[in-house]
Amino acid sequence: MRIALCQINNTVGDLAGNSALIQRFARQAAEAGAELAVFPELALTGYPPRDLVEKPSFLERTAEALTELVDATRHLPLGLIVGYVGRAPAGSARRATNSAALIEGGRVLFRQTKMLLPTYDVFDEWRNFQPAEKQEIVEFRGTRIALTICEDAWNDKQFWERPLYKNDPVEALVRQGAQIVISINGSPYDTAKRAVRRQMFSAMALRYGLPHVYVNMVGGNDQLVFDGSSFAMDSAGAVISSLKSFEEDMVLFESEGCTGELHDTHPSETSAVYDALVLGTRDYLRKCGFKGVLLGLSGGIDSTLVACVAADAVGKENVVGVGMPGPYSSDHSVKDARDLAENLGIRFEMAPITSAYDEVLRSLDPIFQGARRDVTEENVQARLRGLTLMALSNKWGALVLTTGNKSEIAVGYCTLYGDMCGGLAVISDVPKTMVYELCREVNRRKGPVIPESVFTKPPSAELRPDQKDSDSLPEYDVLDRILKAYVEELKPPALIASEQNVPMELVRDIVNKVDRNEYKRQQAAPGLRVTSKAFGIGRRFPIAQRFFE
Amino acid sequence: MRIALCQINNTVGDLAGNSALIQRFARQAAEAGAELAVFPELALTGYPPRDLVEKPSFLERTAEALTELVDATRHLPLGLIVGYVGRAPAGSARRATNSAALIEGGRVLFRQTKMLLPTYDVFDEWRNFQPAEKQEIVEFRGTRIALTICEDAWNDKQFWERPLYKNDPVEALVRQGAQIVISINGSPYDTAKRAVRRQMFSAMALRYGLPHVYVNMVGGNDQLVFDGSSFAMDSAGAVISSLKSFEEDMVLFESEGCTGELHDTHPSETSAVYDALVLGTRDYLRKCGFKGVLLGLSGGIDSTLVACVAADAVGKENVVGVGMPGPYSSDHSVKDARDLAENLGIRFEMAPITSAYDEVLRSLDPIFQGARRDVTEENVQARLRGLTLMALSNKWGALVLTTGNKSEIAVGYCTLYGDMCGGLAVISDVPKTMVYELCREVNRRKGPVIPESVFTKPPSAELRPDQKDSDSLPEYDVLDRILKAYVEELKPPALIASEQNVPMELVRDIVNKVDRNEYKRQQAAPGLRVTSKAFGIGRRFPIAQRFFE
Repeated sequence: MRIALCQINNTVGDLAGNSALIQRFARQAAEAGAELAVFPELALTGYPPRDLVEKPSFLERTAEALTELVDATRHLPLGLIVGYVGRAPAGSARRATNSAALIEGGRVLFRQTKMLLPTYDVFDEWRNFQPAEKQEIVEFRGTRIALTICEDAWNDKQFWERPLYKNDPVEALVRQGAQIVISINGSPYDTAKRAVRRQMFSAMALRYGLPHVYVNMVGGNDQLVFDGSSFAMDSAGAVISSLKSFEEDMVLFESEGCTGELHDTHPSETSAVYDALVLGTRDYLRKCGFKGVLLGLSGGIDSTLVACVAADAVGKENVVGVGMPGPYSSDHSVKDARDLAENLGIRFEMAPITSAYDEVLRSLDPIFQGARRDVTEENVQARLRGLTLMALSNKWGALVLTTGNKSEIAVGYCTLYGDMCGGLAVISDVPKTMVYELCREVNRRKGPVIPESVFTKPPSAELRPDQKDSDSLPEYDVLDRILKAYVEELKPPALIASEQNVPMELVRDIVNKVDRNEYKRQQAAPGLRVTSKAFGIGRRFPIAQRFFE
Repeated sequence: MRIALCQINNTVGDLAGNSALIQRFARQAAEAGAELAVFPELALTGYPPRDLVEKPSFLERTAEALTELVDATRHLPLGLIVGYVGRAPAGSARRATNSAALIEGGRVLFRQTKMLLPTYDVFDEWRNFQPAEKQEIVEFRGTRIALTICEDAWNDKQFWERPLYKNDPVEALVRQGAQIVISINGSPYDTAKRAVRRQMFSAMALRYGLPHVYVNMVGGNDQLVFDGSSFAMDSAGAVISSLKSFEEDMVLFESEGCTGELHDTHPSETSAVYDALVLGTRDYLRKCGFKGVLLGLSGGIDSTLVACVAADAVGKENVVGVGMPGPYSSDHSVKDARDLAENLGIRFEMAPITSAYDEVLRSLDPIFQGARRDVTEENVQARLRGLTLMALSNKWGALVLTTGNKSEIAVGYCTLYGDMCGGLAVISDVPKTMVYELCREVNRRKGPVIPESVFTKPPSAELRPDQKDSDSLPEYDVLDRILKAYVEELKPPALIASEQNVPMELVRDIVNKVDRNEYKRQQAAPGLRVTSKAFGIGRRFPIAQRFFE
């Protein structure tokens, strides 16, 4: 059978738009001679719909949209596999199901409902969906298909040391006599994910001796970036067809002869992270209805990276960088910011905060009564910058991008309502050391748009005279290794200290900073996830608590 | 058997502190002649620990703390039932369990693990815990006890129209020959909860013909306020022992003769909401390590209520109200604020924002280039107030309380990084109409501390000349009814319009405002939950989405 892998970028809740997109790809697939067009998990509704599925009106309108899609594709000479939110059987505890329909000739031939509901990290599916109690294979044009939805194919008991569930739906379907496994997915990107998927599916294909088709969605939805990277494998686990990462794409796979087409993927994971950030930013803006963005350009490496990502995401003509020098800003910072803006071709505005800063301090004088200067005055500078950006945002209808990196946000080296102001935290899951790598990647791609001094000057917030990040933090390579071990791998401090050969007091100081700054992160802008454990919806800690390492 | 219901207020993660608290209550129970002291769900670790249980070090130190508690209570002449986080059996998908231990004479006699794991609204237990596969009764001093943990006793199939789970653990344990049902709980307050609990347990007690003991925790943990309100019932479902709401308490229950003691509960639910806010505020501050608070006092009804709650929560000497008049503030507002502060006996400071506002606008002039005034300038005022409060917070080490009510936050009638600045949103789950009721309650309790003009003047943000809330919103009683139907009851707009006899366009306008302001709420301070559906962790909607009613 000739199968089209349709890697679409849909929008959560946009039933009409998603349906139109599905129809467009289905027509293209038909024109290319496909007999079956396979779409991702929840293609019709978008993923993750979260508590939208708790609304009766959402379920009702989704059912209508599916009916309309069935009708609109009735004359196409092929079948469609389309994920949608279904209604749970009467008497179920939950209202909705995560389902897929096989559609052909104006009819729904078959429905499959997801059985394994991921409820960890960023996933909350057990909250929202009723699982299937059983699943069956379906025969379509003479081929018996095991149709599985995302997590259903992720519990292979031979591949994982500690499978999360008792059932292995793929094994059960293969036993029913399947000739091909088709897996539809909403599987978000992280730096390890693309490799793991191929390894696991390759192991399954080889063991079952069956071709496997893996279709993933592409696009950004809030904190998650879906990379696509769909593929089809032959029964020996070799990749026969592959689709691009971070772009919509369609490729054919011929399941009998096992022939297909290989579209390019990324040369390095650094390059993939950069494209993930671009796509996540572009889609957040587009799906929220924004055209332009603005950001503070300090001349530092973080805002530099965000400016580059923004220019690639929405076009340089839609990006404004704002220099907001204060009493302790250095001249070279402003120069670096201006040079970058010029090299990128983005608009640059200056909005100095010094006079407002002086006025705020003057008006607080009667209450402060000569109290010693401390972090208060540093935060006032950061907050006046936040206020300035938000004023421009209000006036222009442009979204503010925040520029804090993961290392800073982890230890609370950021000002709530100051540099944390904004609608999207573009690099909040990018450790500082990776920020440098990504900026090198930018210069590899674009030529030397980022001035060399941005790489070489010591990181500083410039909120007091001669301030350096290294005054209060270890070198970033040390910090980032500690943070990865603690935040991503949940290792206890003693183990981190011994494994990395750093003093226990340093590790304890860092992890306590992480714990004590939870309150800031819970008010942070949504941030794009690119590692295995990002701050945000995937990491849920109490604020008022007293467990310290 | 003489049972002590021990309603304690523990702190998440404070293993040593919680253990000491348990020991203190156990000694008191022993002195009162109890044979068994029953503590709430996760008494040793606090509830909800959330992702803390993903840390191996948390499980290790909890196991040590339980061992120490067993040892420390070995000479007491009674048994203890204590909730704790256990380690899941080897090979389980999840690391932790939600368990309870029966302790006596230096030994753990019995362990029960929770079977039904709530995963809806504010609960995420399926994310964090491995459920029990089976449960057993335990005999203690001649009495066969059905020991159940919270949700395990909340799936009564006769009481609920749509039970959430297939199993009914209570029924299964009663069938094993239990003579008494003991339920330990971490059940957060909302306005309906106290009545529902008693109704359900009464129905169960009557049907099974067994006495039921219900022990709930008390205290605030982040967004949740646990009200306590524990009780014991005889086998006819009559309340024999009852404990206070919103306070630590201990009461005895004699299970044979079914005798006990009734402690007072609240005369009205309005009064209960007020005490919930006081307790939630007090505990958030205490458990986060703050002593003092400050808040903007505008003379409006919202900040008035928050000031009253704060004074009751941490004492008037630890509250500072700040008047921050701007260009459009009325004289009577400042007077009302000052009068309130005087009546409450809290410190009042003035920090006018007008000069800083003028300076900010002057510095933005070159970029704005004479653009028409709009919401930008209103937000600058709100943000300068936020900046002022945060500066005082930094300088004094006091926490800022935000003063936005649920109605405003629902429709986005609030400024991100402006009046939304703060560590705790005290009344963010209190609809505006309930704000008025609670202020009346304050004056009933304290005498006329709130000036009558606060009740009678039309609500206004005073951000432009002659602004009134009613310029852009319907009357608050209409608004609140629409919001309750939409946010708490998830009703579709057409149904709301017909049920409440309001124009469909108005309903649609309101619910679209709710949907479009999701981005603001995701950066809001944690807010205390008092209704059945609060914004915050219990309501999870995507931001970048296009499903509109």
